[in-house]
Amino acid sequence: MIALIHHSFCPHSRFVRLALGEYRLAFEPIEERPWERRPEFLALTPEGITPTLFEGDNPPIPGHAGIAEYLDEAHGPEMYERRLMPLDLAGRVEARRLTRWFNVKFYEEVSHWLVAEKIFKRQLTGAQGGGAPNMNAVRAARANMRYHLQYVGRLIAARNWLAGDTLTYADLAAAAHLSCVDYLGEAAWSENEKARDWYARMKSRPSFRPLLAERVAGLEPSPTYADLDF
Amino acid sequence: MIALIHHSFCPHSRFVRLALGEYRLAFEPIEERPWERRPEFLALTPEGITPTLFEGDNPPIPGHAGIAEYLDEAHGPEMYERRLMPLDLAGRVEARRLTRWFNVKFYEEVSHWLVAEKIFKRQLTGAQGGGAPNMNAVRAARANMRYHLQYVGRLIAARNWLAGDTLTYADLAAAAHLSCVDYLGEAAWSENEKARDWYARMKSRPSFRPLLAERVAGLEPSPTYADLDF
Repeated sequence: MIALIHHSFCPHSRFVRLALGEYRLAFEPIEERPWERRPEFLALTPEGITPTLFEGDNPPIPGHAGIAEYLDEAHGPEMYERRLMPLDLAGRVEARRLTRWFNVKFYEEVSHWLVAEKIFKRQLTGAQGGGAPNMNAVRAARANMRYHLQYVGRLIAARNWLAGDTLTYADLAAAAHLSCVDYLGEAAWSENEKARDWYARMKSRPSFRPLLAERVAGLEPSPTYADLDF
Repeated sequence: MIALIHHSFCPHSRFVRLALGEYRLAFEPIEERPWERRPEFLALTPEGITPTLFEGDNPPIPGHAGIAEYLDEAHGPEMYERRLMPLDLAGRVEARRLTRWFNVKFYEEVSHWLVAEKIFKRQLTGAQGGGAPNMNAVRAARANMRYHLQYVGRLIAARNWLAGDTLTYADLAAAAHLSCVDYLGEAAWSENEKARDWYARMKSRPSFRPLLAERVAGLEPSPTYADLDF
């Protein structure tokens, strides 16, 4: 049995939940607010981050990148054509490059700022750093996003999926981060039609359904968040 | 032939150089100051980060984690007992967990601050953010480091190497980051004797030699930086 410590609007947790969904692996989700640094949580995993995955007798697996590699090693071979990593070396390099692009670069330049300022700050106390969003950070993230949506559009103009012919972790990473941004009405879909079409394909996958049902207390999603024909 | 875009005092570049050294893989090192965002560099790799590795017809491989996975897949099998990742699943999980601990957590809490404030700021112009070190950041990094050195000591009291019986990426990551800190005289070895003994073992490996010969212009290393019996 797999257990996953996650936060509903942590983009990296969403990335892992999409992967588990694509692999149809049942798991026990455990919601955590990592900034509270609960001793019971830190006793399980000294990294204290979401996502952290547990399976069998393995040590805890903290972080999106380690979890993705673990799932590929432990479960990838039995997934055959649904495997989220290509089998050839060059294909794996490109899938990892683009997975990193969204899980690290897009996160640092866009989704971290929007999610932290507009969602997490609502859940933090004043002493923890909660409060009104820093609009300078929000504006910078918005400006950066346009560049990333153009990149998605350029990739998908030349390929079936972001990293090549098949669905890979790269698509899940991009969609996970964009789903958080889209909840906030901050995804500038009008910028690039090809990027929007690709996201519509992602959104209609069964693995996406649980994400579209989630809500932030006191903050309605954008009108098209759960709309498959947005 | 392998080419590696790196910076001498980028801890993640040092991590990869140690791995290439352990594998005795010849490579062409290309020194880059990524903050200059040279168009020729960004044309090669849109991520614009160090380290970025190139080999054969593969796409560029940006970032420490993707490079480590690539080297394990492309060269690990032929390294036999020198392979830097265990073969069993639980061993790989633990090696990745600790590699992440140093390449991500230690970096964010310690080495990034010390290297950025005390080395990179010397190489930046005023417009790029150069200048005197922010001593609040330096002090916070120093306080965090003590906790990490205790962790190294606890791990090595129970194991031959950080992640288990054999040398892995985890040892190279920890030593790479600590080597930058040690250059600055900021490694608090007196805190933990076991951590210091482990670092002495790492420092005496042939893969370490090129690192110990490097200098920051205008900034002498700590007296024991290159001393194997420090």
